[in-house]
Amino acid sequence: MNDQPHERREPDGLTRRRLVAGTAAAIGLAMLRRSAFPQTGPAPPPSRPLGGTATVLGARAPQEKLQRIVFGTMHGMSLTPLQDLHGIITPSDLHYERHHAGVPAIDPHEYKLLIHGMVDRPTVFDLEALKRFPAVSRFHFLECSGNGSSGYTDVRPDQSPQVVDGLTSTSEWTGVSLSTLLREVGVHPRATWFLAEGGDAALMARSIPIAKAWDDAMIAYGQNGEALRPEQGYPARLLLPGWEGNTNVKWIRRLEFADRPFMTRDETSKYTDPLPNGTARMFSFVMDAKSIITSPAYPAAVTGHGWWDVTGLAWSGRGRISRVDVSTDGGTRWSPAVLEQPVLPKCHTRFTFPWKWDGAEALLMSRATDETGYVQPTLAELRRVRGLGTNYHFNNMRAWRVRRDGSVLFGLEG
Amino acid sequence: MNDQPHERREPDGLTRRRLVAGTAAAIGLAMLRRSAFPQTGPAPPPSRPLGGTATVLGARAPQEKLQRIVFGTMHGMSLTPLQDLHGIITPSDLHYERHHAGVPAIDPHEYKLLIHGMVDRPTVFDLEALKRFPAVSRFHFLECSGNGSSGYTDVRPDQSPQVVDGLTSTSEWTGVSLSTLLREVGVHPRATWFLAEGGDAALMARSIPIAKAWDDAMIAYGQNGEALRPEQGYPARLLLPGWEGNTNVKWIRRLEFADRPFMTRDETSKYTDPLPNGTARMFSFVMDAKSIITSPAYPAAVTGHGWWDVTGLAWSGRGRISRVDVSTDGGTRWSPAVLEQPVLPKCHTRFTFPWKWDGAEALLMSRATDETGYVQPTLAELRRVRGLGTNYHFNNMRAWRVRRDGSVLFGLEG
Repeated sequence: MNDQPHERREPDGLTRRRLVAGTAAAIGLAMLRRSAFPQTGPAPPPSRPLGGTATVLGARAPQEKLQRIVFGTMHGMSLTPLQDLHGIITPSDLHYERHHAGVPAIDPHEYKLLIHGMVDRPTVFDLEALKRFPAVSRFHFLECSGNGSSGYTDVRPDQSPQVVDGLTSTSEWTGVSLSTLLREVGVHPRATWFLAEGGDAALMARSIPIAKAWDDAMIAYGQNGEALRPEQGYPARLLLPGWEGNTNVKWIRRLEFADRPFMTRDETSKYTDPLPNGTARMFSFVMDAKSIITSPAYPAAVTGHGWWDVTGLAWSGRGRISRVDVSTDGGTRWSPAVLEQPVLPKCHTRFTFPWKWDGAEALLMSRATDETGYVQPTLAELRRVRGLGTNYHFNNMRAWRVRRDGSVLFGLEG
Repeated sequence: MNDQPHERREPDGLTRRRLVAGTAAAIGLAMLRRSAFPQTGPAPPPSRPLGGTATVLGARAPQEKLQRIVFGTMHGMSLTPLQDLHGIITPSDLHYERHHAGVPAIDPHEYKLLIHGMVDRPTVFDLEALKRFPAVSRFHFLECSGNGSSGYTDVRPDQSPQVVDGLTSTSEWTGVSLSTLLREVGVHPRATWFLAEGGDAALMARSIPIAKAWDDAMIAYGQNGEALRPEQGYPARLLLPGWEGNTNVKWIRRLEFADRPFMTRDETSKYTDPLPNGTARMFSFVMDAKSIITSPAYPAAVTGHGWWDVTGLAWSGRGRISRVDVSTDGGTRWSPAVLEQPVLPKCHTRFTFPWKWDGAEALLMSRATDETGYVQPTLAELRRVRGLGTNYHFNNMRAWRVRRDGSVLFGLEG
């Protein structure tokens, strides 16, 4: 061991020293350095030249090619690369997108939010007014209500986590509690619903029970420390923690309080789930507990026998994730995964599970349970209750088939 | 109130409706739309045209001009714009920088970490090998040990939070626990210290007590969900939660285990604090509890009487923040601030305090207490213990003077 004063050396110093002793003992250090890093040869090691200076704004390393996948006929959708991400935070430029008439360009100095209807003091708030109220910051996932349809109705084996479930992301959101604004405008005791209307060309509009406004709803203007990104509703959006993405109306410009829902196009022609018995689920706001293993997962392969870290995300719109179980045999035996701290309510939770691969075919599955006791259903269970006519709330368990050659395919029949 | 089916209207719909009734009642809807948004007039409202399509990578709204301030003669430093940020997460492109020989460009496929010295199995790990170990993710602040010198020795009034204390940021870090690697290489029971050496041209090197390796140190390769940014040590760095920034050696390439510290240049000529009694503090690793109000703060002004949300950040290298108190009279009376959840160990904590400004001059101060009972000292208290010859660990309380005209200056004598 080293008991000399600290000496600077290359990581391969021992190897180089042997080389020197054998073939170039007489050559001085200066010559060695010159021959080790000739000016016309390969680039010098990164520890040689002075590096780049500090910058006003950082950028990713050029080797890191993270991208959303743009999807849908209107280019109104992009998916988060879940398989490439660590922890629970989604970088803001990789947060999934879903919009019905594109991303409007709103001048924050022109932005206004009108609150009216069954209130004592109808009021128009500009952005500065909203920011002057006490701010709250919370970590929450968002998930499109249609997320995961390709894990329910169209289970193709060559799908990555991004393609299967990339319409969910987590951010730290900052804004003003809607309850603060309700007190400010004096909402009537008999008001039971409010309309939330967006300022995009779709005029996205949903009816929301007022209890959510008094609970944890906020008008958010901050995302991961900075302003909302344009595709997330810049300069302000409604945030309804744990509720389906479309109710978190972006570019929010109007809240109207009433004593009944408004029955908008966006909640009648869409976002209502037909059921096998001929009735339909309407106002199915809450995103139920769900999980997905993000590694190993298609298209990545398990490249050797031995220990692997099975990891993924779990979340519930009803509160905290209380446990995640992992099966490597398609659901016969289950073992608890480790939940990374912090486990926050209505937020992605990272789970990990050590798995020793012996080369046999394996079926990796995860099963989330939330603090209400709700357990993520199997595909068969969910299909039995919901039928095949639904377009929303696909929270059934996902499976990854690890084949003998180490390749990984999506679905039980992959 | 509205009990009709939902009707789409502009936020200024009522006004326009009056205009129509008074001056253009005979004009059909098509004509109205044409006259309200003439093609040669001002731009249409953002709710009219189809917006932008989804993109593979998002970008900030053009109105958001967030920047680090580049500082120092070598351009080896940049500061986070604390006054512009919400919550606790620092966007990765705004995380502060400090490097001693610039940012090296390291090919992740060439990257290697050597662990040797008092170990049974000296080992070279490449990046894939590090990523195959069980991963951990944690939210932690980093702070340069020199952060806040301009709040200690050079208290000028025209300084923003970014200039005073912008060498601290918070990220979610992902990596492998150093304790996992210690078990892998079989560190000797008699090893008490290790050398951490970086792969930049400064070959930054620090001696670290082995207890920190067994506690919560990690080799981090992830930051806020994605790979480390280049200026944060891409592709891997040492992370020592709560310890002074320079010990979190970036571009980490070598760990050497020994039974004594190595007395490197970086811990003898620098990062040792002379004391007034002629002795010096060496290996002063832990960043003590600290806080700063980030709003209101120079250069922003308090633009009117009434309620304001006083907000800022508090943190401690010893664990969780247990309370933050705010004074509006320069430290005579103190009141507890609200701590935003989650309050995480060795992580920024956001605090808020409602304050009603009556137009009189005010002196806003914050005082952090951590879970060990440590209380952030006053400037006078810290100067008495440390003297004026020190360059590190400036965690004294900060003050903002609100003048009668609403302008805000830094320092008690601003």
